[in-house]
Amino acid sequence: MKLAELAKAVGGEARGDAEREIRGVAQAGDVRDDEATFVDDPKYLPLLAGRNPAAVFVRAFLPELHAPQIVVAEPRFAAIRASAAFVADPVFAPGVDPRAVVEPGAVVDPTATVMALAYVGAGATVGPHAVLAPQVFVGPEAAIGAHAVLHPGVRVGARCRIRARVVCWHNVSIGSDGLGFVRIGDQHVKIPQKGAVVVEDDVEIGANTCIDRATFGRTVIGAGTKIDNLVQIGHNCLIGKRVLIVAQVGLSGSVTVGDDAVLAAASGVVPHVRIGRGSVVGAKSGVHKDVPDGAMVAGYPAKDHMAWKRETAALKHLPEAIRALQRLEKRVEELETKDKA
Amino acid sequence: MKLAELAKAVGGEARGDAEREIRGVAQAGDVRDDEATFVDDPKYLPLLAGRNPAAVFVRAFLPELHAPQIVVAEPRFAAIRASAAFVADPVFAPGVDPRAVVEPGAVVDPTATVMALAYVGAGATVGPHAVLAPQVFVGPEAAIGAHAVLHPGVRVGARCRIRARVVCWHNVSIGSDGLGFVRIGDQHVKIPQKGAVVVEDDVEIGANTCIDRATFGRTVIGAGTKIDNLVQIGHNCLIGKRVLIVAQVGLSGSVTVGDDAVLAAASGVVPHVRIGRGSVVGAKSGVHKDVPDGAMVAGYPAKDHMAWKRETAALKHLPEAIRALQRLEKRVEELETKDKA
Amino acid sequence: MKLAELAKAVGGEARGDAEREIRGVAQAGDVRDDEATFVDDPKYLPLLAGRNPAAVFVRAFLPELHAPQIVVAEPRFAAIRASAAFVADPVFAPGVDPRAVVEPGAVVDPTATVMALAYVGAGATVGPHAVLAPQVFVGPEAAIGAHAVLHPGVRVGARCRIRARVVCWHNVSIGSDGLGFVRIGDQHVKIPQKGAVVVEDDVEIGANTCIDRATFGRTVIGAGTKIDNLVQIGHNCLIGKRVLIVAQVGLSGSVTVGDDAVLAAASGVVPHVRIGRGSVVGAKSGVHKDVPDGAMVAGYPAKDHMAWKRETAALKHLPEAIRALQRLEKRVEELETKDKA
Repeated sequence: MKLAELAKAVGGEARGDAEREIRGVAQAGDVRDDEATFVDDPKYLPLLAGRNPAAVFVRAFLPELHAPQIVVAEPRFAAIRASAAFVADPVFAPGVDPRAVVEPGAVVDPTATVMALAYVGAGATVGPHAVLAPQVFVGPEAAIGAHAVLHPGVRVGARCRIRARVVCWHNVSIGSDGLGFVRIGDQHVKIPQKGAVVVEDDVEIGANTCIDRATFGRTVIGAGTKIDNLVQIGHNCLIGKRVLIVAQVGLSGSVTVGDDAVLAAASGVVPHVRIGRGSVVGAKSGVHKDVPDGAMVAGYPAKDHMAWKRETAALKHLPEAIRALQRLEKRVEELETKDKA
Repeated sequence: MKLAELAKAVGGEARGDAEREIRGVAQAGDVRDDEATFVDDPKYLPLLAGRNPAAVFVRAFLPELHAPQIVVAEPRFAAIRASAAFVADPVFAPGVDPRAVVEPGAVVDPTATVMALAYVGAGATVGPHAVLAPQVFVGPEAAIGAHAVLHPGVRVGARCRIRARVVCWHNVSIGSDGLGFVRIGDQHVKIPQKGAVVVEDDVEIGANTCIDRATFGRTVIGAGTKIDNLVQIGHNCLIGKRVLIVAQVGLSGSVTVGDDAVLAAASGVVPHVRIGRGSVVGAKSGVHKDVPDGAMVAGYPAKDHMAWKRETAALKHLPEAIRALQRLEKRVEELETKDKA
Repeated sequence: MKLAELAKAVGGEARGDAEREIRGVAQAGDVRDDEATFVDDPKYLPLLAGRNPAAVFVRAFLPELHAPQIVVAEPRFAAIRASAAFVADPVFAPGVDPRAVVEPGAVVDPTATVMALAYVGAGATVGPHAVLAPQVFVGPEAAIGAHAVLHPGVRVGARCRIRARVVCWHNVSIGSDGLGFVRIGDQHVKIPQKGAVVVEDDVEIGANTCIDRATFGRTVIGAGTKIDNLVQIGHNCLIGKRVLIVAQVGLSGSVTVGDDAVLAAASGVVPHVRIGRGSVVGAKSGVHKDVPDGAMVAGYPAKDHMAWKRETAALKHLPEAIRALQRLEKRVEELETKDKA
């Protein structure tokens, strides 16, 4: 693709060598001579030192930048759109690959794709246009919705339900048993985990994330919720709609999360707590009690975000404050001594 | 199932519409019209607002609850028992599926089940009544004990030993190499990892958990220990019996954990530390030194649990304390000035 | 192997029963009667209580130790070398197993090994002497370098590049989409993730670790970097050479890590931050801003390691300091009262 074509594709204005060939898009710190990149703030120009990009998306022409430029309102989004123009979406041929295993009693829609080495258990259903990549496991009586995409190594346990347009990335585990044991004498006796998991429409789940089946009833992931990699969601959690759960978050059993909440990376929640609608839980924080709707909490144990900030800022002064206190104690002692004298 | 039948099945007393059909069990916040649920404390009744459960297990009849009830001593356990009555345990036919791969020299007991797309390496053994689900990997010379169940995607590396009745959930990794490198000049040179992992009887391991093989000798998980999802156990760890390790815990190499200890969620332990018998490590804490038998520790770095609680509580007062200290310094200064005058 | 043979193999001096048979190596706390172990400091001798090892590698002869001994300069490394002598490296026969799936248009070098149940997508390439274990997935147009080893369950997404001698452990995910969404109205709208991942020469990646593909361009793992288990690396991260990333670390999107940096276990970094060359990020810390070259940071939010240590030490005194402050306030009040009187 040439500069003018690319500018046209993103609705921008080309400035510079119109003949140079552009073969892809990359971030500024890693861009090659045949790739476009973007700079949405001149302060990032040093990232291009020693680099010779074929085109740079910019907000306004940058005379100090010696490279072909494309001026657009949103350089980052232009780069994203350009990238999509270079890399086609995958196309999946419908049908069951003969090297896949579909057990008797399973029902696969004729428009669905079941690739080689995928496994579909007895009584399971696979909906229209769903895609099961190689090495996917769909357990007995599980259901995969229309247009769902299960990437390689996804495991969907028995009787779990994956609704329409759900995307699960590599090695997602849905429907493993939760940690349900009762100590009786010198044994941990297992509590049967007979519930299931329901993943509602338009959910996306990141690689190696685990969602445990309910002890009874259902662990539910609400419609439109997006979950990152390596997240743990315990048995009987009820996650609302459009929730964002960032990487390495851990939710214990029976946690409820309201619609539109955000759980930042590596935060955790103890069992039976309710995270309010539209609330935000800070990264690496640990929540021990209910979070009100719309609240923002941080720290461990988690508290109001501003209170946590004040404490964190004050902590910097603690070593000096303790020394100051000791000095002050001496001064008061002196005053007292004089006073008595 | 009808109310009277269900009451009989759990040894409870039916109160209300005896003819309604009950088809399953769910938690209060998600129960449907044809399902039973439980309320073990009237304070949870609001969870049933707008819901119309077919039966509710209760400790004592609740007149304010307009739903069929079953009075039992332990409502939650009644719900668990009822759930098991609705969902049968899976039954596995013995034998090796022709679409599984069993390499020459492997020995599979005729009562064991090896499902389609499972792989058993050369020299491996699979014991009586063991179940290898689809897409399981058992490495060369590994051994799987009687009645063990390996769920889809479990990886058992070469020479590792899984004893009787062990359950491993989706994508568990047993026997990967630990992070063993020595820096020599400008390289990280690999230390050969030639040991193995031994998982003793009655251990259960959650989805996507990783247990590294020993550098030499054995990483050991003691009998009856239960491990949750996404846990990391480093090379040469020696975990005792009946230990509970909750989700996202990370144990560095050569950690020793005494019998009956509990490691709460997302806690971590540095290398070569000993966690005492029956001790408890708090959630998200980081342990830097040995924990005595029976101790309870929390925080980062982990310390006595009560000391940590006191510090955490005091921290709330720190911003105000620093201001108070500054005010006090001024007052002392004034007193000193007057004193001099 | 007999004591004298083993001593010779590690260049040490045998002391004690030369005829006892040694069949392996284990750590002191778990050693059996037919195994060797090591003690590099007499303080670890109690670990051998009640044990009867066939040989013990020691720095200097220990008269109080009643077991055959081998005196060597580095007992631990002698044990590692001995262990390698007992366990042979695996040998892989070249060729594609007929039970593997290689899609049309993929190119597998004749010296490479593709084991049963592995999958190689259309247009992918597998280099000389590379090994794909059972149940590995190599996506369309991905490239696997010479002598790379992908252990069971590794997933390499479309167009990703794995260079020479890279080792990926069980269930590693390379090339899943990152958490890239834009909130528009009441939806999280997906940002297409069309970039790839490049893993340079001599990288080793631990089990169940996830590396997201770039939004555009490349997520890069630099040559010689070693990554532990259960690590999350977000889209567009640029990781330098010879970096060490310990278990359960989480890097958000667009993080840059300089050469030779060390990220200790369970630490985390927010998006767009730069971790300096040769810097060290402490375990469980959370980095919110750039870390200078060679710096050592700890805590949450992460700060200079020594400042964090001082604050942490001071925190122990906080509960008492607050009480002391209150007592002092009273004393000053008394002085003020007297002063006024």
